Amino acid sequence: MNKGINDFTARLSSVAAETEILLKQLLGDATLDGEISRPPRLVAAMRHAALDGGKRLRPFLLVETAAVFGAARAGALMAGAALELVHCYSLVHDDLPAMDDDDLRRGRPTVHKAFDDATAILVGDALLTLAFDVMARTEVHGDPAVRVALVAELARASGLGGMAGGQMLDLAAEGRFEAKRTLNEKEIATLQAMKTGALIKFACRAGAILGQADPAARTNVDRYGTAIGQAFQIADDLLDVEGDAKTLGKAAGKDAAAGKATLVAALGTDGARARLKALIAESDAALAPFGTKADILRAAARFIAERNA
Amino acid sequence: MNKGINDFTARLSSVAAETEILLKQLLGDATLDGEISRPPRLVAAMRHAALDGGKRLRPFLLVETAAVFGAARAGALMAGAALELVHCYSLVHDDLPAMDDDDLRRGRPTVHKAFDDATAILVGDALLTLAFDVMARTEVHGDPAVRVALVAELARASGLGGMAGGQMLDLAAEGRFEAKRTLNEKEIATLQAMKTGALIKFACRAGAILGQADPAARTNVDRYGTAIGQAFQIADDLLDVEGDAKTLGKAAGKDAAAGKATLVAALGTDGARARLKALIAESDAALAPFGTKADILRAAARFIAERNA
Repeated sequence: MNKGINDFTARLSSVAAETEILLKQLLGDATLDGEISRPPRLVAAMRHAALDGGKRLRPFLLVETAAVFGAARAGALMAGAALELVHCYSLVHDDLPAMDDDDLRRGRPTVHKAFDDATAILVGDALLTLAFDVMARTEVHGDPAVRVALVAELARASGLGGMAGGQMLDLAAEGRFEAKRTLNEKEIATLQAMKTGALIKFACRAGAILGQADPAARTNVDRYGTAIGQAFQIADDLLDVEGDAKTLGKAAGKDAAAGKATLVAALGTDGARARLKALIAESDAALAPFGTKADILRAAARFIAERNA
Repeated sequence: MNKGINDFTARLSSVAAETEILLKQLLGDATLDGEISRPPRLVAAMRHAALDGGKRLRPFLLVETAAVFGAARAGALMAGAALELVHCYSLVHDDLPAMDDDDLRRGRPTVHKAFDDATAILVGDALLTLAFDVMARTEVHGDPAVRVALVAELARASGLGGMAGGQMLDLAAEGRFEAKRTLNEKEIATLQAMKTGALIKFACRAGAILGQADPAARTNVDRYGTAIGQAFQIADDLLDVEGDAKTLGKAAGKDAAAGKATLVAALGTDGARARLKALIAESDAALAPFGTKADILRAAARFIAERNA
């Protein structure tokens, strides 16, 4: 198992490094066909938002799911970069004073602190837009039907009925628009499935789309993506309760202090840990048909459930 | 010519009405495949932003350019609705207090006034995302290569090197980030080509893409789109100087008061009017190869240059 963990860490780092290279290229100064000019301030702020950041977990899940189905790695990495741009945009907008009002992200000033609110709004808009530009490129896949399917699924996962809608539910749950009330477990699950689950599930689905997996395989990938999306959020909420700011690179205890609706609050920390175990079992069950080819995804589920940062 | 103008008005109204129906359907409550739930507050605010609004000029240009090349009207209307969603998102974000800080839009409270800043940010994000969802749908065109080309071009026109970048240049020109200085004519032209021109040009290009026009025809459509994009902005700036708030549905004189960089300020009103005439001549020259089929686009150029609201 130790060898497995080392292998996992190496592969995670490798995708992160390759993604970083792609994002640097995508956020260069030179204009592309169809662009008029790239304002340097906006480019700089987009780089601040998207480079040197995070574990690149979503691109990793996309690339490794694609690998299970034998899809070309270069295309999966490009699709992963597009997905990461969506993730980065969401962080920039969520951090705004009008939203969650965070000054620190990954141990660095958030975009609106390093620049200003207007720039941060435009950075998010431009990152989101660039994501669809990138996903539509031939480098992702030679078949336009595959690319347009990825665009459509990315949009559904990110928008009104997915991530953006989830952020709206989260603000509502804080009592921002009406009297605060405690969400029940089902409501919390819906909120989290939208806010963080949808994009993680998309990462896995996108790998299956790129690999042109058959419908039965896609159903299993969906099960896996749903399970690890839930595990990701529970682990995140446990970290907020138990982590420290230094490891997290952001303030700990903030959600608990805000009385945020989490499954950890609803189930208690022991209950949440039991749920994580059940979700690992569920992800293993979903991956069973893929045999050893999916070992890296099994390791990913454990990493997500047990991470400490 | 009077008959021509009546015909133009009728066709403009018709596209607006059909677009309204599509937008209402797209902004319904029911979730679609791939969506988890649609938070009612976000749906309501997106409707406030996108319904009952404007002349729907961009969908009109898309639909009528598509008609010149014999593309199916239903698909062009759907692509036009996607484009209008991008336009509406840009208005919502531009109106935010951190950006242009406008309380009134089309005679009604802006989204952040009717709701709040956080909701307005999410409305813009979700409208932009929905635009790509819609553009990727089979209803737009049966050939995925056509749809993915539309997605790619829409992204380029709207993002860092297009509309979003143009808004960044506009804020910079106001002296928001560094000492204010007067832009020269070329800088103003670049700013406007990005901020408003890119999306208008895209409307025309999208019609040519849907109609699978040959490269020579696309070049002419580009010339036309560029000319009317410039004419649109000059007419807009003339209206800001000479219009009144009641006809405009928004405050007049605001740009002039802010010392905003416009070609009207650079050329004077007479110089701006002469430029508009030259742009109509340019658009006529670009349309010449299409004969009488393009009469409606000729009328559109005149409408854009001569509009009073």
